[in-house]
Amino acid sequence: MKSKQFVVIGLGRFGSSVAKTLYSLGNEVLAIDKDEKTVQNISDYVTHAVQADATDEATISSLGIRNFDVAIVTIGSDIQSSVMVTLLLKELGIKHVIAKAHNDLHAKVLYKIGADRVVFPERDMGVRVAHNLCTSNILDYIELSPDYNIVEISAIEEWYNKTLRELDMRNRYGFNVMAIKRGKDINISPKADDVIKSGDVLVVISTNESIKKFEHDKLR
Amino acid sequence: MKSKQFVVIGLGRFGSSVAKTLYSLGNEVLAIDKDEKTVQNISDYVTHAVQADATDEATISSLGIRNFDVAIVTIGSDIQSSVMVTLLLKELGIKHVIAKAHNDLHAKVLYKIGADRVVFPERDMGVRVAHNLCTSNILDYIELSPDYNIVEISAIEEWYNKTLRELDMRNRYGFNVMAIKRGKDINISPKADDVIKSGDVLVVISTNESIKKFEHDKLR
Ligand SMILES: Nc1ncnc2c1ncn2[C@@H]1O[C@H](COP(=O)(O)OP(=O)(O)OP(=O)(O)O)[C@@H](O)[C@H]1O
Ligand SMILES: Nc1ncnc2c1ncn2[C@@H]1O[C@H](COP(=O)(O)OP(=O)(O)OP(=O)(O)O)[C@@H](O)[C@H]1O
Ligand SMILES: [Ca+2]
Ligand SMILES: [Ca+2]
Ligand SMILES: [Ca+2]
Ligand SMILES: [Ca+2]
Repeated sequence: MKSKQFVVIGLGRFGSSVAKTLYSLGNEVLAIDKDEKTVQNISDYVTHAVQADATDEATISSLGIRNFDVAIVTIGSDIQSSVMVTLLLKELGIKHVIAKAHNDLHAKVLYKIGADRVVFPERDMGVRVAHNLCTSNILDYIELSPDYNIVEISAIEEWYNKTLRELDMRNRYGFNVMAIKRGKDINISPKADDVIKSGDVLVVISTNESIKKFEHDKLR
Repeated sequence: MKSKQFVVIGLGRFGSSVAKTLYSLGNEVLAIDKDEKTVQNISDYVTHAVQADATDEATISSLGIRNFDVAIVTIGSDIQSSVMVTLLLKELGIKHVIAKAHNDLHAKVLYKIGADRVVFPERDMGVRVAHNLCTSNILDYIELSPDYNIVEISAIEEWYNKTLRELDMRNRYGFNVMAIKRGKDINISPKADDVIKSGDVLVVISTNESIKKFEHDKLR
């Protein structure tokens, strides 16, 4: 991967995680926060960490931010600052500006002033965690399309010691088994003769409908 | 799925998203926040919404919370309250208490006092977003194990109009192709003769190492 230059403005829990991860993946990362202590805490985990108020145009210009590929604005609660900074970055000509929104209205404003992508980390993670909690068998899930999901399902008792051929998951449940996790091992090309054991986790691609039906039929 | 009884304490962005999603999935949800306006805003999207300070034992008892299956504590910034409430819920005998942590130390304390699971929504979403941003070809990813990931990769030009057999992804890149997305369609059992087109997105299971190598070799 060609390493890119990222600037992350606002180093709350979300912003600092973005900044550290981008850096750990080999990118150049400039991290900015107006809080001095926050900046000190992150300084070992990014390329440069600078204490500055990002709404101040002169400061932003002096940091050479116009040359960065991507900016991520993760000022959360101070909606006015988040909007001002996003506008400033687009005016500087940064191609890709991603901004974190507090709510729908905030998101609308961010898009209007030119944000290229708006994210809702708390809301999105809330949806994920709720899905995970809602049944003890669905462990994790990723949305592939409005209809299809990849889900991790812990094996139910009636599957134990049966082969995939016997279980015939595609016809019985609409499940396409992609992988089987057993402790730290993963079988990424499960064969018809492979046997499901107690404690196994199946990674399947399936429709929302099939998953709901399974939850309804099997887990009551 | 048998519908369960959930109580969500703290209705910030994360908590309210958890509460609304659980309710939309057919569960009974009691939502509690000390802020009256927050409670009003959510009242149409959950079973019951109550304004209360959850650190107050008498209030919590009077709400009959001991009968709930799962409690989610999403008080964020006020670490002391988050810890007190979590402790109170475990003492009431609630089997499953999930708590949101502000940082690692907070998480440690939560586990010590009996939290069954601790979540870091901002941090986790930060990692996801950073991975997504880091290369234009890796679109989304889910961690299967410390070594294996499911990733969505947009097809690179040299794959266009070739069959999976010709591309031999498993040997060349260590990619196990699970599905191919084309617009709104998903091919969930790709065959050796299936042809990759411009705009296709491949869903693959692969090791961290193989993905890094691909990013390094192909995307520079
Ligand atoms: N004008 C500004 N310039 C630079 N940094 C700013 C500015 N305004 C706010 N910040 C910083 O942005 C960071 C995130 O803001 P805040 O804590 O309000 O968001 P949050 O949504 O609660 O974050 P998270 O949930 O990710 O922890 C804070 O560390 C704050 O100091
Ligand atoms: N003792 C308490 N009893 C009930 N609710 C509380 C208590 N303390 C805090 N809360 C509520 O918890 C909610 C979340 O707290 P806070 O906003 O500090 O967390 P946060 O991590 O910033 O949330 P998010 O990032 O999800 O928006 C707030 O709506 C707050 O009113
Ligand atoms: Ca914060
Ligand atoms: Ca908040
Ligand atoms: Ca906050
Ligand atoms: Ca937050």
